[in-house]
Formats: sequence, C-alpha cells, structure tokens
Amino acid sequence: MRQSKLFGKTLREDPKDEISANARLLERAGFIYKTMAGVYDYLPLGLKVLDKINEIIREEMNAIGGQELFLSAFQPKERWQKTGRWETGNEVMYQFKDNSGHSLGLAWTHEEAITEIATRFISSHKDLPLFLYQIQTKFRDEPRAKSGLIRGREFLMKDLYSFHTDEKDLERFYDKARDAYLNIFRRCDLSVYVTEASGGTFTKSYSHEFQVLSDAGEDWLFYCKKCGYAQNKEIAKIGVGHLCPKCKGKIEQGRSIEVGNIFKLGVKFSEPFGLLYADEKGKKYPVVMGSYGIGPGRLMGTIVETHRDERGMMWPDAVAPYRVHIIELLGKEKVKKVKEVAEKLHQELLAKGIEPLYDDREEKSAGEKFADADLLGIPWRVVVSEKTLEKSSAEVKRRDKQQAQLVKLSQLKNFLAK
Amino acid sequence: MRQSKLFGKTLREDPKDEISANARLLERAGFIYKTMAGVYDYLPLGLKVLDKINEIIREEMNAIGGQELFLSAFQPKERWQKTGRWETGNEVMYQFKDNSGHSLGLAWTHEEAITEIATRFISSHKDLPLFLYQIQTKFRDEPRAKSGLIRGREFLMKDLYSFHTDEKDLERFYDKARDAYLNIFRRCDLSVYVTEASGGTFTKSYSHEFQVLSDAGEDWLFYCKKCGYAQNKEIAKIGVGHLCPKCKGKIEQGRSIEVGNIFKLGVKFSEPFGLLYADEKGKKYPVVMGSYGIGPGRLMGTIVETHRDERGMMWPDAVAPYRVHIIELLGKEKVKKVKEVAEKLHQELLAKGIEPLYDDREEKSAGEKFADADLLGIPWRVVVSEKTLEKSSAEVKRRDKQQAQLVKLSQLKNFLAK
Repeated sequence: MRQSKLFGKTLREDPKDEISANARLLERAGFIYKTMAGVYDYLPLGLKVLDKINEIIREEMNAIGGQELFLSAFQPKERWQKTGRWETGNEVMYQFKDNSGHSLGLAWTHEEAITEIATRFISSHKDLPLFLYQIQTKFRDEPRAKSGLIRGREFLMKDLYSFHTDEKDLERFYDKARDAYLNIFRRCDLSVYVTEASGGTFTKSYSHEFQVLSDAGEDWLFYCKKCGYAQNKEIAKIGVGHLCPKCKGKIEQGRSIEVGNIFKLGVKFSEPFGLLYADEKGKKYPVVMGSYGIGPGRLMGTIVETHRDERGMMWPDAVAPYRVHIIELLGKEKVKKVKEVAEKLHQELLAKGIEPLYDDREEKSAGEKFADADLLGIPWRVVVSEKTLEKSSAEVKRRDKQQAQLVKLSQLKNFLAK
Repeated sequence: MRQSKLFGKTLREDPKDEISANARLLERAGFIYKTMAGVYDYLPLGLKVLDKINEIIREEMNAIGGQELFLSAFQPKERWQKTGRWETGNEVMYQFKDNSGHSLGLAWTHEEAITEIATRFISSHKDLPLFLYQIQTKFRDEPRAKSGLIRGREFLMKDLYSFHTDEKDLERFYDKARDAYLNIFRRCDLSVYVTEASGGTFTKSYSHEFQVLSDAGEDWLFYCKKCGYAQNKEIAKIGVGHLCPKCKGKIEQGRSIEVGNIFKLGVKFSEPFGLLYADEKGKKYPVVMGSYGIGPGRLMGTIVETHRDERGMMWPDAVAPYRVHIIELLGKEKVKKVKEVAEKLHQELLAKGIEPLYDDREEKSAGEKFADADLLGIPWRVVVSEKTLEKSSAEVKRRDKQQAQLVKLSQLKNFLAK
C-alpha cells in the first residue's frame, strides 16, 4: 500500500479530549476516529489490526469446535423479560420504542437470544455438546467511557456459548476454552493472569477473568510474578505482603485490564426458556450452558497500552496492520534510483504476501517519515536512500529495537520473509 | 462439515409467519432465524453464504481502489442536524436518549459520518480522488418488513463513498463503480437491469438502480428483454406497448428487486460539513462526492428468490455454503464400507479445499436425506451407497439438473475439483 494514497494521515498533536494512551496514539496515527465518547470508527489501518485479531480468535474458536453465526443487535422486550433482564439490565441496555410504539433493546450480550434460538434445534442428548460463537457489535450504556477502545458504548465482541448435558461436560469444555483463550492472548503477545472471579450479573456459579497488567486498567489485581497466580482484588483472599499460596513467592498489586472472561452459566438461561434435552431414556433435563467473551477492540486497545514507547506504538507481528514499512528517502536531489529500488521492493514484497506499507510521500522530510514510522509502529522498517544504495543495501530496523543493520538488496526479500 | 454436528436442522414445515419465499426457505433450511419482523439472525449455513457474498463485494471494491473501514452505528444528533436529516429522516432513523439524557441515532446510511471524518484528512487536491467503503450493520425503521432478507429493519450494507475534485472525475469513477457492480451481480449469478432513477432523499442529481426481476420485488420495471434497457415505472417515459428506444424491441412490465444503487451526491454533503480541497493555486472548492450501496443480505434473499424450485434452493457455486453435499446411504444393513468411502471422500475434499457438507446422519432415511439436500440447495450432490459401490462409483448430480451420473471413485476428486 502506498502511503501517499492511504486514508488516515497522522496528526501533529494528540487529540485534546482523550486521556487514555491507546486512544491518543491510535487517533493520532490515523487508526481510529472518535465519533463520541466510547464510540470509535475504525479507519483502514485500524480495521486491518481488528481483522487480524478477529482472525486469530476465529481460528482458535473453530479449533475447539465452535460454529460461527451472526445474531441481531435488535432485541424484543418479551425475550428479555423471560430472564427479568429487561428490567434489571435497563441501566446498561439501550431501550427505546420504534415509530409504531413497539419496545426494542440493543443487545449488550446474547444469552437470551442464543438460548431462545437453541430451543428450536436442541431436543436430544445427541444434539449436545454444541459450541456457537459470533463476532458482532454490542451496545452498552457506559457512563464512564474514557478509556478509548478499552471501554466502549459500541464495540465488537466475540461471544461463544456452549451447551452441555451436564456440569461435567461443561467443565471439560470450559478448560479447553480457557486454553484457547490463552492461545489467543499469546498470539497477540499479551501476558495474562487468570483470576477466579464472581459471576457478575450472569451467574452465581464461578467464572474466570483474563487480566493484563496496565496502568490503563480499571481492575485491581493481587498477583505473583513468579508463578502467575492472581486474584481480583474485589474478591481476593490474599493481599500485598502475603505469600503466594501456590509458590510462596511475593504477592504484588497492580492495575489491570480484563481482556476476556468465561462463565459457567449452568441452567440459569435454559430454565426460563425451556431449553431441555431428552436423555437416552427420553427423560428431559435443562441444558447446562457456559459463556465466553473477548472484545477484539478492547484487545487492540490493550495491545497499544502494553506495546508502546514515547514515540508511538509497537505492534506484535501477528496483528500489525502491515509487516514491513518501506521508507524511501529521495534526498534533496530526488534521486531516481532510490524510488526505483523502493518501488521494486514494494512490488516484490506484495508478490510474496509480506504486506508492505510503502512511504512514497515526496513532500515529507526524512525526520517526518521516521516520526510517522515510529508512531504507526509497523514491526520492520526498511529505509532505502542514496547512502544505503552506495552499499547495495537497505537499512533494516525492528520497531522495538535500537539497532539498525544494513542488508544487501539481493538478500532483503528472504531476510524479511523469515 | 459433518451434518450430524451442524447447528441448524431443517424444519418439516414452512414457518407460519413468513410470506416471502426467501424467508420461508432460508428459515426452513436452518440458514436464518427470525428474531422479529425485518430482523434475522444468520445461523452457520446462512453466515457462510453471507461471508461469500461479502468477499465477492470486497474483491470488486478493492479492485477499483476502495479502502475498507468500519464506522459506528451510533450517531450524534449534532452531526445529522448539519444536513437537516436528524429531522427529515426521523421516520426512518431510530432516535432515542441514553441514560444521561443525550440524544442518539442509529445510522441508516453514513454520508454524514464519512463526510465529517473526511474533513480531518482531505485538504488538498493531492488527497483526491479517494474511495472508502465498509460492510456494516444499518438500522431503518421499516413499517412494512415482510420480504424476508429483502427489506430489513437491521441489515448489513456495503456502502462506498467517493471523493473527487470535480464532476468529471466523479463521472469517470461512477462508470467504473457501475462496472464493478455488474461484476458482483454476475458473480452471484443474477441478471440485472440498470435503470436510471431519481435520487430519492439523497440528491437531486441522477442515480442508477440495479434491478433483478422477481415476484418478490417491490418495484415495477418497464424493460426490454432483447437489449436489457429498462426504466423504473416511477419515472418511466416508456410503457408496455411502446418500442424500446434502444433496439425497437418489445417493452414488458414486471416486478423487480433493487439490489444496488449508485448516486452522484455532488456537493450536497461536502458543503454543510465544510469539506473543501485546495487546488494547485491554493483556491478552495467543495469536494464532489458519490455514494454506492449494496445490501449483502438482500442479495442473498434475491438469489434465493431467483434460484429455487418447488423442492428448495439452488445456490450458485460462488456463494453456496458448501460446494459438495456428500450423502451416505447405509441402508438397513448399515453397510460399513459405505461409511468408510464417504468418510474418506469427506477428508479428501476437505484437504483439496472443496468444502464438503457430509450427511453422516444415521437416523435419517434416504428420502429424508434427499429432501434435505434439495432444500439446502448445495450445487453438487454425491451419493455413496451399496448400489453405487457395486460399480466402484458414486452418484453425482447437480442440484439444478435432472440427470444424475455415476462417477468412478478414483475419478471423483478430480471431477469435483473442476
């Protein structure tokens, strides 16, 4: 992609109305646009990151047998009255009437929807277990939406729902889902602590949260660096000064971002909707359920919070909008040869599927180009200039390293392909 | 995919509350679930079709230089007051207040949003032309949502917006976009008539509609079969009995579905938002815009309306949820060899990327399996039974043909790969 054509120029200054680092950097770099508090538009660079995160999530959900579907945002009042959440959830749920006076709500979660739908298709133990997920937009009326992509009023969510004959089968899948979640976070280069937590509005049964330490977090965590053991402060039985119950290490305290959660729902939703299955003898039981959430946008915001320095973002390879940032420096003499080499490299990397962003902007100085490259945070920076060409080379540098190195043009493709 | 595991069983009877053929068939076949009038959930089979349509659209939009982004559904009142459409559009726009009393709307189109965003990034003629698109959920308060996926209150939309220095440049791109649209419809196996139409609420300049003849349509068309010339009845200057102004052929009349539209917006949106560019001399002009819409869900509904018979749907290869439907008939003796061959074929096609659906359901009769296969409408049906194995063959049939043929097992993979 030619940077001269890319929609989304960098801004010279931080946006004035953003406090969180992720929103400041993403907006300044042209990844997102703020439409209102907690509501962001994804510009081309931002959407590329989001798509990559979504694809990682899809792969991991499919690997544990998840089937993808896509549910509506609009929800009928009657459906949510079955669980009482039309009333108890009205602080978080946008509710309104259409022009014909009918009450509607916008889904902030989909337990009611998926349970109702499942009643059409599940009737026998042979239909179980079943794992359904979607990546879809949710809406929540958040009074405190000041954390950029980390807490939105409109945001993407991956929600998976599992259906089982009994608790034991739920347990088995729950552990698999937890491992799949750990894969997702690992692939996004995030270090997570898994904490046991209360079930919130969902369930009285227990749940787990996946937490990433960060100043931008809204939770407090007691954790042990040595073994990874952690508890959410809200329900913690340990504290600073205690010894880790697992490894006797030191317990520390820090703010953290909840990047995912998994819940054992039990029969909380299947009972009000009459979601039953018949066992081998024809006897009917309520289906046992679990739910598993990750916010791809929140994940993106968390990656920015944890992968940055004073000059900008530093994307992990797996979710970077582009893998290589080619920067041509034509110099004052507008050296033709530099453009030719950069153009050729751009074409060759495209052909190899390496996804280059090519800074072909002639009006920008070397300083401006480097500053933009650091802000955008593409993992590999490749500079082509008259100076590097004297040595038949380009200068290659990782965004997260200080050291640059000259790589012969003839070896560049293979160097970057690794 | 094993059909025994697939979420979304077929229903024995048509849903009672659906009049349109597309909703009846899609719901009965387990592709969609109706949450309320004009609001559908996409189950795994339906989402597969939708994803394929989206991918075709993406390819064609990228090919004409489109850059994808993803805008929010939530819209601030102030933004829409700039064009007066907060008030004039309030019959179609869902508008409500959040818990803190702030007015919000749900986007039914995104001209206001994209124009506002563009003002941040467009300032010079060097920033033009520019082509931005998204595939995103829209909401419209439709009193008459009775046409299944063809008219929704919540629906996916591909909307592209183009930005130009002048009308002439807009004209050039407009023609390219029209051709890209024709590619999309051709790839979805839809015969479209292109009609000139009024600009509706968008513009007083002219626009074009892409129309597919169908009883399920809501528009009336005067058209000439011989050369493809057509006019929308609303603004038609020809009628039945007239001769086609292009080829002197016979003009006929029929109902049609509008599957896409393209508009020349001119400066209607750039002026109120102050979206200006400076020319070479620094003089400022309003940016000239165009907008280009296709509803992927409506496209899916239209394909069903035009590709079906009394037994079910008939998907074109490019958008079929699966390309091959393997049906094993174990017979009363539950012949082991049949399952082995079907299993092996399933694995081999998967490895070849041919996307098989494998009807491995043991409790279903041959009749039930054939009826389901016809309802689902997967292009190739491959039957493996004791009888076909006697000839070391499987029985292969296209959904849209009467004739079946025996193909040797050894040749089957290559036969289907074509």
